[in-house]
Amino acid sequence: MSISLYDRIVDLARRRGFFWPSSEIYGGVGGFIDFGPLGFLLKRNIEEKWRKWFVLRHQDFIYEIETPIIMPERVFEASGHLQHFTDNIVECLSCGRKFRADHLIEAAARLKNLEGYTPSQLVEIIRNRNVKCPECGGELSDVKTFLLLFKTNIGPYNESIGYARPEAAQGMFTTFMRVFRVQREKLPIGIAQVGKVLRNEISPRQGLIRLREFTIMELELFFDKSNPSCDLINEYLNEKLRLLPEVMVERAIEEEIEVTVEEALKKGYILNPWNAYFMVLAKKFILDLGVSENKQRFIAKLKSERAHYSAQTYDQQVLVDKWGWIEVSGHAYRTDYDLRRHMVFSGQEMYVHKKLNHQMDVEVVETIPKIDLIKERYPKDFNNVIKILREIDSDFLKKALDELGKYNVKGFEITRDIVEFKISKTLKNSVKLIPNVAEPSFGLERLVYIVMENAYSEINNRIVLKLPRDIAPVQVVVLPLVNRGGIPEKAIHVCKMLRSNGFITEYDDKGSIGRRYARADEIGIPVAVTIDEQTLKDNTITVRDRDTWRQIRVKIDELPNFIRGFIENSINI
Amino acid sequence: MSISLYDRIVDLARRRGFFWPSSEIYGGVGGFIDFGPLGFLLKRNIEEKWRKWFVLRHQDFIYEIETPIIMPERVFEASGHLQHFTDNIVECLSCGRKFRADHLIEAAARLKNLEGYTPSQLVEIIRNRNVKCPECGGELSDVKTFLLLFKTNIGPYNESIGYARPEAAQGMFTTFMRVFRVQREKLPIGIAQVGKVLRNEISPRQGLIRLREFTIMELELFFDKSNPSCDLINEYLNEKLRLLPEVMVERAIEEEIEVTVEEALKKGYILNPWNAYFMVLAKKFILDLGVSENKQRFIAKLKSERAHYSAQTYDQQVLVDKWGWIEVSGHAYRTDYDLRRHMVFSGQEMYVHKKLNHQMDVEVVETIPKIDLIKERYPKDFNNVIKILREIDSDFLKKALDELGKYNVKGFEITRDIVEFKISKTLKNSVKLIPNVAEPSFGLERLVYIVMENAYSEINNRIVLKLPRDIAPVQVVVLPLVNRGGIPEKAIHVCKMLRSNGFITEYDDKGSIGRRYARADEIGIPVAVTIDEQTLKDNTITVRDRDTWRQIRVKIDELPNFIRGFIENSINI
Repeated sequence: MSISLYDRIVDLARRRGFFWPSSEIYGGVGGFIDFGPLGFLLKRNIEEKWRKWFVLRHQDFIYEIETPIIMPERVFEASGHLQHFTDNIVECLSCGRKFRADHLIEAAARLKNLEGYTPSQLVEIIRNRNVKCPECGGELSDVKTFLLLFKTNIGPYNESIGYARPEAAQGMFTTFMRVFRVQREKLPIGIAQVGKVLRNEISPRQGLIRLREFTIMELELFFDKSNPSCDLINEYLNEKLRLLPEVMVERAIEEEIEVTVEEALKKGYILNPWNAYFMVLAKKFILDLGVSENKQRFIAKLKSERAHYSAQTYDQQVLVDKWGWIEVSGHAYRTDYDLRRHMVFSGQEMYVHKKLNHQMDVEVVETIPKIDLIKERYPKDFNNVIKILREIDSDFLKKALDELGKYNVKGFEITRDIVEFKISKTLKNSVKLIPNVAEPSFGLERLVYIVMENAYSEINNRIVLKLPRDIAPVQVVVLPLVNRGGIPEKAIHVCKMLRSNGFITEYDDKGSIGRRYARADEIGIPVAVTIDEQTLKDNTITVRDRDTWRQIRVKIDELPNFIRGFIENSINI
Repeated sequence: MSISLYDRIVDLARRRGFFWPSSEIYGGVGGFIDFGPLGFLLKRNIEEKWRKWFVLRHQDFIYEIETPIIMPERVFEASGHLQHFTDNIVECLSCGRKFRADHLIEAAARLKNLEGYTPSQLVEIIRNRNVKCPECGGELSDVKTFLLLFKTNIGPYNESIGYARPEAAQGMFTTFMRVFRVQREKLPIGIAQVGKVLRNEISPRQGLIRLREFTIMELELFFDKSNPSCDLINEYLNEKLRLLPEVMVERAIEEEIEVTVEEALKKGYILNPWNAYFMVLAKKFILDLGVSENKQRFIAKLKSERAHYSAQTYDQQVLVDKWGWIEVSGHAYRTDYDLRRHMVFSGQEMYVHKKLNHQMDVEVVETIPKIDLIKERYPKDFNNVIKILREIDSDFLKKALDELGKYNVKGFEITRDIVEFKISKTLKNSVKLIPNVAEPSFGLERLVYIVMENAYSEINNRIVLKLPRDIAPVQVVVLPLVNRGGIPEKAIHVCKMLRSNGFITEYDDKGSIGRRYARADEIGIPVAVTIDEQTLKDNTITVRDRDTWRQIRVKIDELPNFIRGFIENSINI
């Protein structure tokens, strides 16, 4: 039986130290993995590459921050996660096992894409198609929702509930105003964050692809909706994207189209230019990780599949051997949803005040208290309530009532029915707005797997991991041809010199030179340098290219620059 | 009233974007902070410096890995945290507030160092000294223990409990054998990890100094106890350390001694050379972060204060303005405790098999079943039990019974009383051992604060943050002298050139040049480059040193190399 590519990679990963199941000595826990020495370095190099593409290119307006993993309950009430970040779960009434309902039904009834279905729709399918427990054949319970947030308790009081964040985004939204002020209150502004997130999946079973704890690389780009243009995109208007827009997904078309960015914007396939810009970068970034364009595409999510905060989402997908197309990044247009919700839940302003070049007609909201109704409801406190309604910002109050239906202020509950809002236009030289948000979001662990799959090759029955040179975990291996006659000393000297020049360098003196080359190729070391008799005579060494196996001699003095150039692809052998 | 140094730093941190309380819009949650754009960069640079000192210098035998934050309950049972990682807590019977008992009593009764006291000892003091609630004066409850681990649930089953790790160490212990095998089974071997940890402190109130969620930089060095020597220390035998060894702490001596590493080892102040080696590196690392030697010391922890796994612990302390001496790193000699516990709890071997150069007398353990007792207890299964006892490794069984009192195997409970162990010496050419562990462990957030405090200075009523150049968050600021006549265009060109050379570069064209210098000094930018009329003529620019305010002119072409040299301290202005 032939071994699948996935199994070969998992085997290599274990054997050489890329990754393996976590807490393995205790039988492991689904959805958690350990990165070994090589996996750690590879993961880190991919993160650095993301940082170059998404953050460091934009030092003028994108800033990286770091916020906690655990956040208080109120944050996820406001963000909508407590309500919406759930999966449908079904339990076997006989053996007690629990399953993700949509996946179970998809497998049992050979259906597709049940992700957006409600519990009652799923129950109906279970009953109609007589779906049973896949493990024991038992009857299945009704479908319930299961919150995918990891819950915990902060400090010694039971009522102080916290959750592990399922995305880094909320830390960036809750702290938006501080970053905005520190950076001199200019739009557009981007906030980026890389960090661990947790999603309590019901039964993850896809190795690096579906983890309960993983690393997210996220960017929130805040812009003025009335001026969504993105200068940076002009450079890329003719860049082609392979898309499956919502209109096609709705009609179950499975063949993607190839359109220019300009076309995609013009036809409304992509709603806003910032998302389009980051989709271009995402394509180039994944290309840079060794995944060719024909193995990449962007597929729109239908309304029923989208996260609750999103007006449009494209998943960037990559084709892999075992599972077909899998998501590597999400490109969501989050509108002003998150900032608006945090504003009304916290009572803290999230407005950006924009100065206008000249006076303009600006929409303003005015609160009109319904006097009679207020008198009736608050006969004693009538004056107080009126005063409060006069003091509170009308736009804020309208948003709060739109979101929450009611709003508590100074002990009084303001409900939707006791006020009206008048919207009119007035000449003003400034306007206040809540920024809109475009978000590209990558899962880092998946990228580690995808990079390995795309680099994997076998030549004469041995593995060569053709990683892009600049993300290879180990950059150089130093090999003394023999272990005598001054050669090891020279080799150790070269090894130390390379390390002090910042290269991750391995030293290998065990076994035949062929075996050592093979060992280095298997973990994708781009450069092997061999020290031999001639080195002792003329201070040159052999440099060997992992992929072509070609060799040339280089002077030891010139080695650091040579390797740097080779790794950065400006030199070839 | 004069403002404390701490308050000045916190104010600067908020105003310029280093750090601030997390979830601030919801009133904040004690023990969680956000790092803004500058804080993120500073934190990252400190981490990189740690990596250079502790990992990259030791590429031959120290490997960095990454393991999950959430681990299953069994891990923390084995590690002893479920039993020992607790604080004593006391509740006010009147207002319901909860307090850390030792801190409350220390403050109320003016006592010191109650950290190691038992609940009953603390209750006694409360009753004898009539200690009341510091908030409302109410009666206090009895003292209880409070588990400092954040608890959660993994997946949909209630019985599947997980905890957030309070140290990165357990991930390195549980995965030790995999890393050891991947790295060709050599001792000594080090495993390092940087990552988030969580400790559910009862009421943290010291900003960056005491956090519930923070970043640990940890290294476990595994060595053969029979050969604990560390070659690397030879270079540092004459290096001086400022110590308060256990014998002095016991006698309440508060003035540290200064001894050479050689002396500290000879006199037994430091139990093993590996801990001594890392203490030297720790001193140099902290020095490299800008903290002078006279503000550093190592203080031994008494047995009652030490973590349960430690045979000796030194805290590295740094003197800060507001709190006096605070811990920045811990240097624990963890013996074979953790690996041994994980071995007996998981049933998985944690032995290292060492080949001997020639046959030697080696201690071997032999299980002697107590036949009569076993017959009596297992009349039917006697033969089975005897067979099991013959099959199971004697050394393993002895360790399991020593730790757990009993051991379950194939449905039988083996108790301490039904076996004896005979220890004898036999000629062998290999020996099996469980490695011992020396651990240096740093808290990264504290270092951010300490670095800022040590860099903070005021000159003519304005702040200059004299950060070590190589950890400054922003490396260069580019300043067009005026905003006309081709100068901004040139300045933007220089800015782009520096960024493409990998420098974190700010561009500032707002306000007078003096104001802009001040703004740059305040956040510790080591280099300011100014573009003026002369630049347009001869392509030179002014380079200004943050600390001396001296300036020289440098050719634009030579700028990247000049700045690199300046930041690495090989060039001065």
